[in-house]
Amino acid sequence: MRILLVGGNGTIGRKVAAALAGRHELIIAGRNSGDVRVDIGSQDSIAALFNEVGVIDACICTAGTGFYGAFATMTAEQMRPGLDGKLMGQVNLVLIGKGFVREGGSFTLTSGIASELPARNGTAVAMINGAVNSFVLGAAQELGQDRRINAVSPGLVEDSFERYGANFPGYDLVPMAKVVNAYRLSVEGAITGKIVKVY
Amino acid sequence: MRILLVGGNGTIGRKVAAALAGRHELIIAGRNSGDVRVDIGSQDSIAALFNEVGVIDACICTAGTGFYGAFATMTAEQMRPGLDGKLMGQVNLVLIGKGFVREGGSFTLTSGIASELPARNGTAVAMINGAVNSFVLGAAQELGQDRRINAVSPGLVEDSFERYGANFPGYDLVPMAKVVNAYRLSVEGAITGKIVKVY
Repeated sequence: MRILLVGGNGTIGRKVAAALAGRHELIIAGRNSGDVRVDIGSQDSIAALFNEVGVIDACICTAGTGFYGAFATMTAEQMRPGLDGKLMGQVNLVLIGKGFVREGGSFTLTSGIASELPARNGTAVAMINGAVNSFVLGAAQELGQDRRINAVSPGLVEDSFERYGANFPGYDLVPMAKVVNAYRLSVEGAITGKIVKVY
Repeated sequence: MRILLVGGNGTIGRKVAAALAGRHELIIAGRNSGDVRVDIGSQDSIAALFNEVGVIDACICTAGTGFYGAFATMTAEQMRPGLDGKLMGQVNLVLIGKGFVREGGSFTLTSGIASELPARNGTAVAMINGAVNSFVLGAAQELGQDRRINAVSPGLVEDSFERYGANFPGYDLVPMAKVVNAYRLSVEGAITGKIVKVY
């Protein structure tokens, strides 16, 4: 398959790329690195990405994050980059990219455990992840039989432990191999409209 | 209790108002009608609302809607009013309003069945409702024991059947009394961090 992986140099994307590279033609997109550049917060940038890359069999997005911080002082402005990026960035990859994904192809987005078990200070991220999950449920119906779409919802992944582990006490550490498998299940399997929980 | 009801002249809000009016001091806020005016899409308007209303025991929001329409041609621009209103409007009511809600008080937001069972053409609404639900899970943790927060997630309500019923084939019609009870459960009960599904 010809696969576009947006965020392919991130913590999860790197491992997904390594797992897919041998079997597929992989195009890595990233904000500051990769085969092609994209800022998923910009619709123009996403349109330019697809025009450059052309027809693909699968689009995976492992890019985007959200605000972590004190709820007492949290503002809509702090939430905005996550809304524009991890939420609407992924939505726009689907809305703009669906014409570039072959029949039988798929989208795989990324949400996360916060949608149902938010960490302290993680309400903004919870909101985004819940939104991505429900978007996928709707989009799967609309894409119908022709194109599939799923979300992978990872917990605290091994490779993030050093940086973020202290913020997630009691969250089981998820092996990278298990996370990678979830993306493979979505891309190479037959499921659609699923939230693949990896936690 | 002193209760601020945002969207109190809408389909659901009207019935919630009627049920609460006898037992509580009710302040109805609406975009074009009510005791006080508010545009929940504007943070300034929300701040002005709370400054005008002052300290309350409960804030209920039944305002806000989202885009329904063809997925094939759906754009981020079409989704924006719902994101700014039903999603961030409700979020901002909490972020801005939490200093005006007494200890022991509560927020009650509104999501909807689309978060898990989207209607055809309802992907944007699904996304918003999923976001509201997960926001409530996070916010409930952050507000802690002092202030409660829940979401009421209604299905297709009786009073919307004439206008919207044709778009929701197979959705059970929810009696208004049942929907109203869910808001009472959140406001007058002890629950927090709950998605009260009424379908």
